[in-house]
Amino acid sequence: MKLNCDLGESFGAWTMGLDQAVIPHIDMANIACGFHAGDPDVIANTLSMTQQCGTQIGAHPSYPDQKGFGRRHMQILPDELINLLHYQIAALDGMARIHGQQLSYVKPHGALYNLMMADNSCRKTVMQAVSSYHSKLKLMILATAQADQHLKEAEQFGIGLLFEAFADRRYDINGHLLDRQKPGAVLNKAQILDQVNQLVKHNKVTTDCGRHITIMADTLCVHGDNSESIEMVKQIKAICQTQTPK
Amino acid sequence: MKLNCDLGESFGAWTMGLDQAVIPHIDMANIACGFHAGDPDVIANTLSMTQQCGTQIGAHPSYPDQKGFGRRHMQILPDELINLLHYQIAALDGMARIHGQQLSYVKPHGALYNLMMADNSCRKTVMQAVSSYHSKLKLMILATAQADQHLKEAEQFGIGLLFEAFADRRYDINGHLLDRQKPGAVLNKAQILDQVNQLVKHNKVTTDCGRHITIMADTLCVHGDNSESIEMVKQIKAICQTQTPK
Amino acid sequence: MKLNCDLGESFGAWTMGLDQAVIPHIDMANIACGFHAGDPDVIANTLSMTQQCGTQIGAHPSYPDQKGFGRRHMQILPDELINLLHYQIAALDGMARIHGQQLSYVKPHGALYNLMMADNSCRKTVMQAVSSYHSKLKLMILATAQADQHLKEAEQFGIGLLFEAFADRRYDINGHLLDRQKPGAVLNKAQILDQVNQLVKHNKVTTDCGRHITIMADTLCVHGDNSESIEMVKQIKAICQTQTPK
Amino acid sequence: MKLNCDLGESFGAWTMGLDQAVIPHIDMANIACGFHAGDPDVIANTLSMTQQCGTQIGAHPSYPDQKGFGRRHMQILPDELINLLHYQIAALDGMARIHGQQLSYVKPHGALYNLMMADNSCRKTVMQAVSSYHSKLKLMILATAQADQHLKEAEQFGIGLLFEAFADRRYDINGHLLDRQKPGAVLNKAQILDQVNQLVKHNKVTTDCGRHITIMADTLCVHGDNSESIEMVKQIKAICQTQTPK
Repeated sequence: MKLNCDLGESFGAWTMGLDQAVIPHIDMANIACGFHAGDPDVIANTLSMTQQCGTQIGAHPSYPDQKGFGRRHMQILPDELINLLHYQIAALDGMARIHGQQLSYVKPHGALYNLMMADNSCRKTVMQAVSSYHSKLKLMILATAQADQHLKEAEQFGIGLLFEAFADRRYDINGHLLDRQKPGAVLNKAQILDQVNQLVKHNKVTTDCGRHITIMADTLCVHGDNSESIEMVKQIKAICQTQTPK
Repeated sequence: MKLNCDLGESFGAWTMGLDQAVIPHIDMANIACGFHAGDPDVIANTLSMTQQCGTQIGAHPSYPDQKGFGRRHMQILPDELINLLHYQIAALDGMARIHGQQLSYVKPHGALYNLMMADNSCRKTVMQAVSSYHSKLKLMILATAQADQHLKEAEQFGIGLLFEAFADRRYDINGHLLDRQKPGAVLNKAQILDQVNQLVKHNKVTTDCGRHITIMADTLCVHGDNSESIEMVKQIKAICQTQTPK
Repeated sequence: MKLNCDLGESFGAWTMGLDQAVIPHIDMANIACGFHAGDPDVIANTLSMTQQCGTQIGAHPSYPDQKGFGRRHMQILPDELINLLHYQIAALDGMARIHGQQLSYVKPHGALYNLMMADNSCRKTVMQAVSSYHSKLKLMILATAQADQHLKEAEQFGIGLLFEAFADRRYDINGHLLDRQKPGAVLNKAQILDQVNQLVKHNKVTTDCGRHITIMADTLCVHGDNSESIEMVKQIKAICQTQTPK
Repeated sequence: MKLNCDLGESFGAWTMGLDQAVIPHIDMANIACGFHAGDPDVIANTLSMTQQCGTQIGAHPSYPDQKGFGRRHMQILPDELINLLHYQIAALDGMARIHGQQLSYVKPHGALYNLMMADNSCRKTVMQAVSSYHSKLKLMILATAQADQHLKEAEQFGIGLLFEAFADRRYDINGHLLDRQKPGAVLNKAQILDQVNQLVKHNKVTTDCGRHITIMADTLCVHGDNSESIEMVKQIKAICQTQTPK
């Protein structure tokens, strides 16, 4: 079970996240491409750090909305979404090659990620964008009960998928994340470690109604926001390493 | 003698230039990368047009200043300038590859172009940026009396140069363009055709003081702003085609 | 019947609209505030022109989306929308006062205008923003069959309304504009002049199904995009002046 | 001696400065206007806090450069600089009035502040912008040995000046700040408190060469970046309150 983390989310004079501290403990870095966060200097710095740690890198493209950090939905036509994704992926891809690194996947950010999971048409547009990129990239999406359907869709576009699970969020019976606003939706430390154990050992999570459902995940999404979350990443990492990988 | 033209300078709802009309008559398209002009959709459209006409393409990166159209000087540290150039070149490069095209050169835009020609340190930073890009690109600069010095600098960075001349601007005795504000600095139609004839036939221009100086240019910069300038491009093209190329 | 027109939609080096040509023929200028179009220089120039012609001025605020020209819907929280509107109105208001002019109304732009007409909650947020501004402003909205309801809402917020009709768009039986994509939705020249005549003389329009419905409008929205539309504005103006005003 | 502090420098999801913690201890808040930092929501929040504490407020306008945080010089024509300042001042002014507050001064930010102090022509353009604003505002500039000249200039534009001194920076014999890069240019805690004592008690500072020069300041610039600097502000405040004010 690999750990992935959103990185390179600083912008100009504004710092966000303890990137340098978290990178040694993760396997996959989702790097912001400059449209919701990041800028050419932040990207270059992030690539230097992932290059040094041998971290796998992916593009983390977004709606063009710095003020809203890509968390506000924007109405964008399919063709425009494809161009928007291509531009961001290409910018990061080229800079990665300069640093001797190779992009291996795309994980849409924020509101675009949510729409991609909720809306078939948006997801197909994202798949088409990844599929038509000039080099082979996988698409990272949420591991849900619809994984089989998503795999079929991806096959039609000739792309591979990476399924991610969340360590710190409660699931419902359909394998979706409970709305953040709902009580119990965000797990506490003990619950997080329990859920990681379940996921890594049994490919299961316990839902909000107490049932066990199967979640087949390739990677766990973790956070490097502050020293507390870095500490949690280390403990999650330890669990992943002691268990037999999926 | 090849014709190069700045293209893809529309932005969102704002149109600039008659790109579709001028592309069939030029050899090299300098495509804006989204920092002074252009956006992912404009870039995709421009690439579709150059792909159809087999036009050679180059990146036309700029200071990050849409409001000022990259024409206002900005104080940028060398490392930041390199990252800024890499990001823009990479974005265009990746989108070009998607369209089955290959970037072959970089021509800095506006105030950055002017500083590159006036300031040794800036020019070396630009050369370093082109040199450290992951695929081989040439740098387009102004053909002046300092061409030999510029070639030596480029050699140190292991990059090739493309020298461009201007059809519509009067030169001074040092091979620099007269300041636009000075009387006679911008040539009229007859003078343009004369200058193109001289350049193509003899590698010479007539300076503001009436002397003939040598300008060895690989390419002429032309404009596709309006129907009048398109007409002029056609006539310049005709002169280039009837003369024995350099 | 007053004529209103969207103005100040140029941006930096990009020109849009024949503002200087249309201003003498209109009564009310909806001036872009820099978030979808316009910039401090464009605003200053536009204010100089409206000041010279004694044109009434209004703020034309938008979603923060230059690339999309404010035409793409963005998901914005009510409090954030209020701040967004206040900032834009304030910027224009202050610049107008410098030019010795006084802002008298607000007309939301593009996707925000459409949502304001379609969604009660958004409309109330816009009304609250106008109501809480430090000086008294009216809100310009679409004249529809719901005008009475809108007047009641506005009364609750203590603001006045200006109802606008469209000269160049076909109405449906409910007093809404037909979707632009539908055949016949955009009127031709003769139809435009007919509709203006009807509106000005009888406060009526002929719907797509051939019925006559009442549209009580304070102002007609006209366009200054090109020389053809300027010509049309002159003819519309002539009709408005020869008829007894409402 | 009043304390002034740059505030409202967060942007979207990025937080900068401990505004809430520092505001109770300062007298004057220089509020970013959205061009180098701040956004409509940050401005509204900052105004709520200064309103609650009765803090005097000023506009802190900048070059249009979020990525560079207004710290990079940009070449801007005088007329464009005036419009740029008017727009930013107006936006903040209008939002302040909504919160029942009144703007009383302007302090240019970053590279613009530095150029204003170094270049007569830029300073006069800034003075013209403040002078032509529709309501009476003072201009805050650096207290130097040229104060008399600056007062004469301001008188010609009919505006008042506020002179600020820096608690944490070493001065040279001409009353200018030593370049940050030079050893000893940035004072340590003990030196800061010494300098504040000298300034408040004697209107003097000790220069890098050990001489005492007169600095007549209306206000001291302090910082609210982190908990350490908040602690320092409290100590500076205590000195200001125990001494006989200038």
